[in-house]
Amino acid sequence: MRGAVLYAPGDVRVEEREDPRIVEPTDAVIRLAATCVCGSDLWPYRGIEAIRGPAPMGHEYAGIVEEVGSDVRAVQPGQFVVGSFFASDNTCEICRAGYQSSCVHREPVGALGAQAERLRVPLADGTLVATPAVPADDLVPSLLAASDVLGTGWFGAVAAEVGPGRTVAVVGDGAVGLLAVLAARQLGAERIIAMSRHEPRQRLAREFGATDIVTERGNEGVGRIKDLTGGLGAHSVIEAVGTQESMMQAIRATRPGGHVGYVGVAHGVELPGGELFFSHVHLHGGPAPVRRFLPELIDLICNRTIDPGKVFDLELPLEQAAEGYRAMDERRAIKTLLRP
Amino acid sequence: MRGAVLYAPGDVRVEEREDPRIVEPTDAVIRLAATCVCGSDLWPYRGIEAIRGPAPMGHEYAGIVEEVGSDVRAVQPGQFVVGSFFASDNTCEICRAGYQSSCVHREPVGALGAQAERLRVPLADGTLVATPAVPADDLVPSLLAASDVLGTGWFGAVAAEVGPGRTVAVVGDGAVGLLAVLAARQLGAERIIAMSRHEPRQRLAREFGATDIVTERGNEGVGRIKDLTGGLGAHSVIEAVGTQESMMQAIRATRPGGHVGYVGVAHGVELPGGELFFSHVHLHGGPAPVRRFLPELIDLICNRTIDPGKVFDLELPLEQAAEGYRAMDERRAIKTLLRP
Repeated sequence: MRGAVLYAPGDVRVEEREDPRIVEPTDAVIRLAATCVCGSDLWPYRGIEAIRGPAPMGHEYAGIVEEVGSDVRAVQPGQFVVGSFFASDNTCEICRAGYQSSCVHREPVGALGAQAERLRVPLADGTLVATPAVPADDLVPSLLAASDVLGTGWFGAVAAEVGPGRTVAVVGDGAVGLLAVLAARQLGAERIIAMSRHEPRQRLAREFGATDIVTERGNEGVGRIKDLTGGLGAHSVIEAVGTQESMMQAIRATRPGGHVGYVGVAHGVELPGGELFFSHVHLHGGPAPVRRFLPELIDLICNRTIDPGKVFDLELPLEQAAEGYRAMDERRAIKTLLRP
Repeated sequence: MRGAVLYAPGDVRVEEREDPRIVEPTDAVIRLAATCVCGSDLWPYRGIEAIRGPAPMGHEYAGIVEEVGSDVRAVQPGQFVVGSFFASDNTCEICRAGYQSSCVHREPVGALGAQAERLRVPLADGTLVATPAVPADDLVPSLLAASDVLGTGWFGAVAAEVGPGRTVAVVGDGAVGLLAVLAARQLGAERIIAMSRHEPRQRLAREFGATDIVTERGNEGVGRIKDLTGGLGAHSVIEAVGTQESMMQAIRATRPGGHVGYVGVAHGVELPGGELFFSHVHLHGGPAPVRRFLPELIDLICNRTIDPGKVFDLELPLEQAAEGYRAMDERRAIKTLLRP
């Protein structure tokens, strides 16, 4: 089959890869309806994260089950399914507490390479969630978004304890940040401040429910959030970047007793303990336990209540994955959908 | 009046200080029934925190109101009151959310020096809580403990979301750590693991409700907590030291999705963002909003449900404050009570 492989920073190739097959009796093999490029794929693409040899890429997936192992009970061939970037058993104590991305048996799907025609998914019963029926084609982008960026933005909002009456600020205008805006709206936030200096992203943020846009960054951005919140800071701030600057911006924009939900994969971040202590914020985040939210997100998508697929502003055949990476790297595209 | 003043590291003197008087119409002046030395007083005493000139010391207090300003309504002369180390209006939005130690009008009481015969308390209506009647003398140590160490340990337990069915670990066996054990017990924790290598402190921890003692520290201590919790880590960990080692020990001893409540004043702590991200813990803490808990704590003490005053294992006249500091610095005493 065809699949994307990263050879070196900036060097993504689509080439023949071995066909996936059932290895464990708990596996499923799915044919991808669509896959995509993640902001986190850009870390190794940009050489910020080390690459050890040619690496199959991609961890976002939705598609039709082709084959299941002998122990698989919850899904069957022909069903349309969505899964997340960590396979999880969904039965251990950590999963039952809602932290499937820290499942004691978790396996990173990214290592298997979802930017491909087909994908082996471990722990299929715990990992995959089937849609009520094979969805209309126009729902596929949104279901694919649920696999990571929507689930991650949603977790950011939940971790930041977004809810009715709350003022929410979102740091980061990538796909996750924009979908955190959508999540905040769905979760009933009163006011949603998107921090973005890019006009097309501002427009999408407003479409998803942002009530205010702040274009300033760093301490100036924090000052603007304070101005908008009677000097106190936001109740809930969602961090969706992962840099030192964005984390400090999120912490400083949050009022004492407020909540920071951070979902940008941290790179080179060191949090100053003294400042954190006196900030009085709650801090929670990490790799989103997307599996916790999938049933609800699939419902909202299939009911057409939400349309997170709008974050895909570039669609390419899988064969043109390299261009998909380039467009995101150069910020010409928010997020690239790839059709195998 | 007589009061303790820190001149230089290791140099505490009790000397004549100006009598406190009403400065603002919202002030009260109280005569202290007792005061004490805090673990955080040891930071400047040990020269780890800079001292700018001779500094009146102490921020823990309980006693009889002598005089109130013209705007004070909630307390009156003759009442026995307890307050906290930050004066707060208890009416601003931050106070109403339960974060009185970040009140928009907060004033540090420590700057006024509570290791003395009398003390001016700003924002008396918001800060002071009166006991139902002037308490029996044997309750005074416990009421004094409520002023900081009990309230702080309690906040640590609340921040760590201690509750029924939870396994709790406490890092730090100072007065705050020991009273965090007491708080965890009151809040219904199923299992309480105290981390301590000092036999008298272990004994007090057991008396306050600890079910297990772990003597190892650092990664070994984390390993022991994991052993005791099926490899997962504790649900709730209370950090009551404030060093890099203790913070990392707390984070690493917490299961994914679990809660760290940190109340040790952070000194030289830098949290690695990547490790924190993948730890999946909730992190919350800071200067305890003791005022939030005072009414409940005073009830529990006056009903003789709890006896936090047991943390005072050395009682001295105020005049011997220097010896009180020395005993704590050398870990001969857990906590020194001073009688003016």
